[in-house]
Amino acid sequence: DSKLKIFSLNSNRELAEEIADNVGIPLGKSSVTHFSDGEIQINIEESIRGYDVFIVQSTSQPVNENLMELLIMIDAVKRASARTVNVVIPYYGYARQDRKARSREPITAKLVANLLETAGATRVVVLDLHAPQIQGFFDILIDHLVAVPLLSEYFLNESGIDLENVIVVSPDHGGVTRARKMADRLKAPIAIIDKRRPRPNVAEVMNIVGNVEGKTAIIIDDIIDTAGTISIAASALIESGAKEVYACCTHPVLSGPAIQRIDDSVIKELIITNSIALPEEKNSPKIKQLSVAKLLAETIVRVHEQKSVSTLFD
Amino acid sequence: DSKLKIFSLNSNRELAEEIADNVGIPLGKSSVTHFSDGEIQINIEESIRGYDVFIVQSTSQPVNENLMELLIMIDAVKRASARTVNVVIPYYGYARQDRKARSREPITAKLVANLLETAGATRVVVLDLHAPQIQGFFDILIDHLVAVPLLSEYFLNESGIDLENVIVVSPDHGGVTRARKMADRLKAPIAIIDKRRPRPNVAEVMNIVGNVEGKTAIIIDDIIDTAGTISIAASALIESGAKEVYACCTHPVLSGPAIQRIDDSVIKELIITNSIALPEEKNSPKIKQLSVAKLLAETIVRVHEQKSVSTLFD
Ligand SMILES: Nc1ncnc2c1ncn2[C@@H]1O[C@H](COP(=O)(O)O)[C@@H](O)[C@H]1O
Ligand SMILES: Nc1ncnc2c1ncn2[C@@H]1O[C@H](COP(=O)(O)O)[C@@H](O)[C@H]1O
Repeated sequence: DSKLKIFSLNSNRELAEEIADNVGIPLGKSSVTHFSDGEIQINIEESIRGYDVFIVQSTSQPVNENLMELLIMIDAVKRASARTVNVVIPYYGYARQDRKARSREPITAKLVANLLETAGATRVVVLDLHAPQIQGFFDILIDHLVAVPLLSEYFLNESGIDLENVIVVSPDHGGVTRARKMADRLKAPIAIIDKRRPRPNVAEVMNIVGNVEGKTAIIIDDIIDTAGTISIAASALIESGAKEVYACCTHPVLSGPAIQRIDDSVIKELIITNSIALPEEKNSPKIKQLSVAKLLAETIVRVHEQKSVSTLFD
Repeated sequence: DSKLKIFSLNSNRELAEEIADNVGIPLGKSSVTHFSDGEIQINIEESIRGYDVFIVQSTSQPVNENLMELLIMIDAVKRASARTVNVVIPYYGYARQDRKARSREPITAKLVANLLETAGATRVVVLDLHAPQIQGFFDILIDHLVAVPLLSEYFLNESGIDLENVIVVSPDHGGVTRARKMADRLKAPIAIIDKRRPRPNVAEVMNIVGNVEGKTAIIIDDIIDTAGTISIAASALIESGAKEVYACCTHPVLSGPAIQRIDDSVIKELIITNSIALPEEKNSPKIKQLSVAKLLAETIVRVHEQKSVSTLFD
């Protein structure tokens, strides 16, 4: 008995199952239900005394529900005398509220880090934080995984595109480092979409820095939420002479009009990961979902066995 | 300018308005909205630097949404340089999860106390905690108000019942102290409903300790949730010869079948407070709602002016 247990909460059970399969153990027995008044009731149905416990939960929509499930589960696991309480958060919600952009704003990404610590987490495993600085919001141990290798593998081995003719595109200035990493793997050049507003209350202009003429453009982002930027960016690329446009991201938030916009856009294919579960109604023939289960399973095993995980980071 | 501001969140705006009216200041300007993906966005629209800020929010249904609103607001208020961050929580949700009744259960009432502190609350004002011990879950200052005086006033001055003929009934052993306090105010005797299960898997028996024959019985509880206990208790009282049955409670959770059960029960009138807002669809001709706004307003003013609030407690 290796004293390792993995529990799933409600945000992404399919991923948690797949992680446990990859680790080669069954998911820990637990239930998350609600009392009549909507309060969360958690039951852990087997002993975890002295175990390294890993709780898998994305704080995706419904974010407040999923976050409270996670905090309450951490409390229960801690009080059940687990040796370590590790939380695996493939998608870390509230990450875009990571600074005071205006006066009197909260910094919810920091608040959430503090809440996880207060509840009793001893380590967090995350994937592609919206800003890598969020790692510094934690005083507990944090492993920060990236999906660029997984996404790149797809383009290299499965997409069938002409790899000689690719350009990797960052949809904004914040994403250039990520685009550079993918470009290295694909041995491709990069372009950057330079959005600016010429004057207040005038529509944004998308200027493309780099030559995309005749190229297969691959836009890479961390989060695709309402898909507004990405679909406009794709059109701008085609207008600038790109032959075709692929898009990819780690976290398919895909809220509001996202699916409609993607279906209506010039994007040929959108490659996403399963850091966030894709509900039935968000399916689209353009979407291809890759699994991060192996990456997370490998991380869990290495953390449990106290082996280095650094080779998984890049 | 007395450097006092009161903000409302979404759980109970009507109560917050009424509190501000009683204090004699307008509610602070703020908005709580949601981003497209459901994440909470809070804006505080006026300066609060150096102010004593009071945030009014019950953690009633939807409890996780309301709790996260509160935590994020606390973070925003703290970062906006408020002098003190006081949270007024008329109904403190998760209070029934206040101990490990079974192995590997969370103690969510304690978790919530820790979360409020971590977010940055410097003081909490609560009303009729399910267990008074929950006060000890906080390391920050706590004022614990009670609704017995308000409920008693109603029976003394407004109900029109024959005060010579009243008996106050506790629906369980845990509520006897509360029933005793009301009985003192009404100069009435008490009775206790003694629930027990003769054997496992056999229906509970309600035995009434005390003589209710010919009396007007007033059942008092802190929370009425699904109203199962209270409606059965009321029948048991009538069967034991009570002339009529009133019921009262501080916190009208009233989830699931509650309203139907009350309407169908022998209860003549149910007196509740507005610690939890009563949505339109939960209205019933049997329900009479009393306001705790004056009590909370008085507490806020005294805390702000650093005067004793102890006379409000009993
Ligand atoms: N859930 C959200 N959806 C959309 N915008 C958000 C969300 N959370 C924060 N923001 C805003 O996004 C901005 C930060 O995004 P970014 O510039 O991409 O780091 C901030 O100014 C926030 O006001
Ligand atoms: N929201 C809730 N609704 C119903 N029961 C609850 C709730 N929260 C906790 N409980 C249960 O209520 C019991 C405590 O209630 P009490 O004995 O009245 O203090 C515990 O055993 C809990 O499992």
